[in-house]
Formats: sequence, C-alpha cells, structure tokens
Amino acid sequence: MTSILIKNGFLITMDAEDQRYYADLLIEGNNIKQIGKDISIRTDKVIDASGRLVLPGFVQSHIHLCQSLFRGQADDQNLLNWLVTITTLESHHTPETLYASARLGLAEMIKSGATGVIDMGTLHHQDSVFQAIEESGIRAQAGKAMMDLTENLPPALQETTETSVRESLDLLHRWHGKANGRIRYGFAPRWQLWNTEGLLKEIKQEADRQGAGVHGHAGEIYDEVPQMLQERGHRNLKYLEHIGVIGPNVQMAHCIWLDDSELRVLAETGTHVLHCPCCNLKLGSGIAQVPEMLARGINVALGSDGTPSNNNFDMFIEMRFASLIHKYRLGALAMPAASVLRMATSNGAKALDLGGSGFGSLEIGKKADLIILDDGGLHAAPLPDFERDDPVKRIVSAYQSDSVRTSIIDGQLVMENRKLLTMDEDVVFSEASKAWNAIANKIAAR
Amino acid sequence: MTSILIKNGFLITMDAEDQRYYADLLIEGNNIKQIGKDISIRTDKVIDASGRLVLPGFVQSHIHLCQSLFRGQADDQNLLNWLVTITTLESHHTPETLYASARLGLAEMIKSGATGVIDMGTLHHQDSVFQAIEESGIRAQAGKAMMDLTENLPPALQETTETSVRESLDLLHRWHGKANGRIRYGFAPRWQLWNTEGLLKEIKQEADRQGAGVHGHAGEIYDEVPQMLQERGHRNLKYLEHIGVIGPNVQMAHCIWLDDSELRVLAETGTHVLHCPCCNLKLGSGIAQVPEMLARGINVALGSDGTPSNNNFDMFIEMRFASLIHKYRLGALAMPAASVLRMATSNGAKALDLGGSGFGSLEIGKKADLIILDDGGLHAAPLPDFERDDPVKRIVSAYQSDSVRTSIIDGQLVMENRKLLTMDEDVVFSEASKAWNAIANKIAAR
Repeated sequence: MTSILIKNGFLITMDAEDQRYYADLLIEGNNIKQIGKDISIRTDKVIDASGRLVLPGFVQSHIHLCQSLFRGQADDQNLLNWLVTITTLESHHTPETLYASARLGLAEMIKSGATGVIDMGTLHHQDSVFQAIEESGIRAQAGKAMMDLTENLPPALQETTETSVRESLDLLHRWHGKANGRIRYGFAPRWQLWNTEGLLKEIKQEADRQGAGVHGHAGEIYDEVPQMLQERGHRNLKYLEHIGVIGPNVQMAHCIWLDDSELRVLAETGTHVLHCPCCNLKLGSGIAQVPEMLARGINVALGSDGTPSNNNFDMFIEMRFASLIHKYRLGALAMPAASVLRMATSNGAKALDLGGSGFGSLEIGKKADLIILDDGGLHAAPLPDFERDDPVKRIVSAYQSDSVRTSIIDGQLVMENRKLLTMDEDVVFSEASKAWNAIANKIAAR
Repeated sequence: MTSILIKNGFLITMDAEDQRYYADLLIEGNNIKQIGKDISIRTDKVIDASGRLVLPGFVQSHIHLCQSLFRGQADDQNLLNWLVTITTLESHHTPETLYASARLGLAEMIKSGATGVIDMGTLHHQDSVFQAIEESGIRAQAGKAMMDLTENLPPALQETTETSVRESLDLLHRWHGKANGRIRYGFAPRWQLWNTEGLLKEIKQEADRQGAGVHGHAGEIYDEVPQMLQERGHRNLKYLEHIGVIGPNVQMAHCIWLDDSELRVLAETGTHVLHCPCCNLKLGSGIAQVPEMLARGINVALGSDGTPSNNNFDMFIEMRFASLIHKYRLGALAMPAASVLRMATSNGAKALDLGGSGFGSLEIGKKADLIILDDGGLHAAPLPDFERDDPVKRIVSAYQSDSVRTSIIDGQLVMENRKLLTMDEDVVFSEASKAWNAIANKIAAR
C-alpha cells in the first residue's frame, strides 16, 4: 500500500460546507486517510503544495473517446449533417485506431485535470477503449454504444437488439469492477429514437442488478420532442419515467428541451444531467436550463462531449462557458463560481458514482481523486491571498488547463509536474496522427 | 536595419483572397519584404517554422490595461455594481501601480498572441501606460479615459472638460507617433453619458487633425438606450452621427443595443465595432448582432475588455466565444472559423490602423506584425495535414494560447519560444502581485 503526503496546500474541499483552508493531506492506498495541520508521518512520497491549490479532480461526465481522432472534421455543420459525418467516420474504426483515439482523449483530459470520465463508446472494438482506460489510471464508466434502430446508418453501425445486449453484457463481464473498482460498466443507448423500448427496459434491469450505469442523450435538439411525442407518446424524460429508465444510475446528456414535468422527473428520481455547454452552442442545439435545474436540486454535471463537437476536452473551457452563458440569460449574478466548480467536481463525481459519494470531495475516507494547481501564471495574476481573495473564482474564470500540475487518481500518481506517468505523451500524439491518417486515407481511397 | 527570415512555415495570409500556403517570409526593418519558396538570403536571424503556422498577430481591440490588477475583484456582479467597484479601485492607482498593471496585461497578451492593442486608460498617470507599451514592443493605440460628467464617482475620477482635453492633448504630444509610429494616441471618452457633447465634438476635431483615434463604449447595456434618448434625444450611434463623432478613426466597444438605423451609421461611415463576447456575457449585457454586422460590411474586431470583466486577456478564448454564441442564435453554420479569425486579426488591425491597412495580413510591404504557432499539442491533435485539414478551424476552436511560440511586432522579435524578450515575466508577475497588495491594503486601512 503506497502512501502520499501533500504538504501545505490550500484545500478546496468541495465538502457539504464548502470548506477551504491550508492543511496537509495524507493518502494511504486508495483513500484519503487524514487531513490536518502539520501531519508528520513517514510516507512513500511527499509533495510540496506550498502556494498551490488542492481540489477534487474534474469529472468529464459526457465524452466519446472514439471520436477524439475526428477533431475538427465536422465544424460549422448542423447536428444532423454532423451526425452523418461522425457516424461514418466511426464506422471505419479498427481496434488499433480506436485505442489511439481513446489514448489521445484520455491524455488530453488528464492533463486538463480530469480524474474521472463517463464515456459513450462506438459500436465495436470497445475493449480497446477499456484497455486504454485501464492503462491510463483514470476512473471511468464506459460502455459500447447501443443503437438497435438505425437502418439509415452505415452497415457497420447497425445491430440487432439481441446482439447489442449480448455484446454489452460480454463487455460488462470482462470490465465491470476491474482495476480495484476504478472501472465501471455503463450501458450506452445512444438516444431514445435509435433504441427500441425493449432494449432500454432490459438494460435498465441489468444495470440495477449489476450495479452498472445507463448513459444516454436526451432532449438535445428541438426536433426530438415532436418526434418522441409521435413515436413514443411522451417527451423524453416522461417516456423514460414511463418505461422505468430513470434513477441514480441513469445519466442523460444535454437535457436542453425539457418541460416542467420532465424537470420534476429528474428531481424526484435522482437522474443525472450531463451538461455540455460548448457542444450545445456549437451545434446550435440550445442552452439547457441549468440554474433552474440546480435550484430544484437536480444533479447537473459538466462534460465536453466528443472533440468533433467541442473541440477540446478541457474542463476549464467548459466551466467558463457554463458560467457565462447562463449569465446572459439570467443576469450577472446567475451561476456563481462556486456552483460551477461544484458541477465540474463533486456533481460529476456523484454522476460517475451513480449517486454514491465515494469520491468528489476532500474528506477522510473518500477515494483519493485530486489535482494540484499552480498559481495560474499570468492568466490568473496578480497572485491572490487565498484567504482574502476567493481562489474558486479564479479557477473558474481565469485559470487555464496548463495550471494543473499534478494528478492523483484512486491514490495513484498519474501526472506529476505536468508529466503524464501512465502514458508517453509524444507517443500518444504521434500514434493519434498516424491512426487519423489511416482512416482519412481509407476514406479517400473509396 | 535588422532582417529576419522565417523558413518553411504554413502561411495563413489573411489577405483579401484568404490565401494559405507553404512559403518562406523575409522581414527587413519593420516590413515584410518578400514571400516565396526557398528564399535564400543572408539575414540577421533565421527562424525554422517547419510544421508551424505563421499568421498575422491578434489585435486586442478593446482593453483597459489599468484594470489588470483587479482581475477577479468584481465577479458575479451586475454592471452598475461592477462599475462602482472598479472605478473605486482605479481611483487608488499611483504611477507605479498603474505601470505594474499595464505590464501585467501586456505580458499576458503578448504571450497569447496579441501584436496590437487598443487601450482605454484611467484618468491619471497615463504616461505609465505609454511607458509600459513602449518598452513591451507592442503596437498600440492608447489614451487617458475622459469623463467630464461624473459627479457620482470618487473625487479622484472627476475632471472638468477643460482639464480632460488639455491633459489628453499633452499626452498626445508626448506619445503620438512615438516608437517608429508604433504608438498612436486615441482619445478615450468613456461613454456618451459620462461626457459632454462639447468634449466629444472637440476631441473628434483634434483626432481628425492629428491622425489620432477616438475610442469609446456604445450600447453596452439595455438601460443606456432610454437614457440616451432622454438626455441626448437619440440612440447612441445616431447621436454620434448627429454630432459628427463617427468615421474610420472612431472605434466603439460593445454595440449590443443598436437598432437598424444605427447599424446603417456604422456601415456607411466606416466606424469600427469592438466586440467583447466574454465580457458581454459575464456582465449580463447581451449579445451583439455580429453576423448581421459583418453581412452589412461593418468592420467588427475582437477584444477582451479589462480583466475584471472577462477574466483573461486571451484571444483564443475570445475567438471560441465569438464563434459559439452566435451559432446558438443563428444555427451551426453562423460564424465560420475563417470569419472569426479575420475578426481577431485583420479586422482588428483595420480598427487599430484607423481604417488604413498597413498591417494585419501577410503581404509584401505590410508591417511585420506576426505570430508563429506550434502544432497545438494534445488539444489540437491529431496533427492535421494543413493542405487537407483546414488549420484555421483548429486555431479558432482547438488551439490554446500556449501554442503561440514566437511573436514579431514591427519587425522586432518580441517573444521567442514562449520567452518574452522585452520583459522579465517573473518580475512582471511579482511586481503585479506587490502592486495589487498595496492597493488592497490601502483600501483595507481606510
């Protein structure tokens, strides 16, 4: 069991009281063992965090690692054209290109402060994604995309209900609970209109039985609502309630076009909302009613979505957008910095932990998923007195991702002084470029 | 006369044809002397730009260097409270704190790729700002803030019309045209409601006579419009037209609450709009009709405004917001990347150059204000083939400011491999912190 002592950091605990203070923090094995002044105990590793901020790591609550290679390939397109472009590209993945894609995304996210992710995979080769996740050291829920109602898509992205469920269960048995519980399976029905009711019901029962998640999209675009009403007789969340696919193990991305009755479903059932502000603007989808959701006690987490709809995996960018786009709607006092940081950290952890709270705050007994930030450099200067000038405001509105110095996930050092310890960044970069060129050449040759 | 040869870069020229190609670029003295394949000529300096992008530098078209020290001091406040907080802080500046504030802002901006700025100063000690500008090597228009109708503000921020004009003219005579013409004076009447009509008319005549600029705010908040109608009988731009304060040497920040007749004034007179998307969201001011303005041929440039209303001086962040917030209103096809980059570069140059076009594109004879970007790292991976995958999309939506490697302004190397050559970054950082603490302590002691 390894032990790490972090000395003299300014702790932003994200606990229920939102406490912030100077202290030492002791990690033993996977957990936070002790927090206090002047802890002096012999440990395997001591990290000097003087003048630095220590906080729970970010959770990227809605991503598509399979799309990392396709960054910039569908810019300035509306969602339906975008979807055709990207699903076509996805259909060309081999296990090798998918592995390169996942590694690229994971490296970018860890360097930007993510310690956890909720990933929606593509149809095939999902073992490659799990392998990359396991090696990277990140905490993750992942699962292959399920789409058993997609006759218009490339043949490589079609599947029967039976195959979809069987392959998902095979993956679950191989990966769920692996790496000391750091990896969790999440069924990933892409969206209601591409999945049969039978599939949705079946996987929810499996998820309940196995302690797995259900991760989908809901209410992303305006046109979805009339189509849902026509085909399923209900708006998205009311439909999911109707068929029982709701609750603390269900995470729904976007949730822009919801009415009051659907907000009530979310609040009453503990179903998580995964808010992706950049993506929603980029694709012209709309702006989710996040402050209203938070006021109702709905758990809203933040995510970047895939790189072709963003184009970064960077929680600092997501926090800026989450903070500013709602002020436009509701005035300058809406979405204070503390709420935004909570969405990026503890709310994300709650979604990833399926409503549990085993991580996402700096508290004794919680799993040690945390990051250490430097002073923010010129972008955050002048240097604040942390006890006088609220550093949370600076993190949300001034820091950039290169301020993340060190990352610890499940008690393991994953990045130190901006050097990834689980991957060789140069290799990840060059293999991603090689993999993308392989796909681009394959398409050009057709 | 120094000469610099930039070898093998991929040039994003931002010329009228938007040409992009691999070439060498030769700088002699202050100007771009030659562009072509395989230039081999003996120069003082050769820069290898293989695999890198070369483009005109960004122009930060609306900033307040005097506020850099106040970053994060007025978050989550509406504009009127914000204004009280910030003007109070401004009133405590000494020449030394103002110099530290300007240096902090300039260092941050140069490191983020800005080669030009349009600055609105505070009331006093503006020589400190000019001194910092001169030493930094940046191209700038600057001027002291003018506010001859401000009985509600701190006494230190009140002035008579006569004093305001006289001090402005004194500064103009000391600084206008200095540093090989790199520095230009810009009268800076803060906004119409804080300035007398007499002052506005007088400085426009002086600006015309002296080749100087006029830089103000217009239509930033909704409440401004009824007040303008009541006090001046016109909406902002119609009023400025009425009193003759319009034309290619006039730059107006924000321009959110304009009607059709005001857009016509802008288009017909060549008056520049300085769009500050982050600031406008943060203060709940609104979203300017930028795509509509561009469609009318209005010159719209981008700016960060001051750090307390942003909180960064980072054109990459501004480009992301400028790109995405209009897609929300007008759909995913609005504001393509090429338009956004043009706003950040050549449109900004046109505003700073008062309608001239002596810089802002990579063309022979233009002044050499340019930056060199690296491959964008993980945030922009996989590495694109610049001739196949449009790099402009990546610059706007994926690159971050730490990709700016090298900056040349007016033919002079100002940053190389991310090291500032005109300032010591550590000194700038620590002096900024010291200056801010001096002001904070002064206020705490009152």
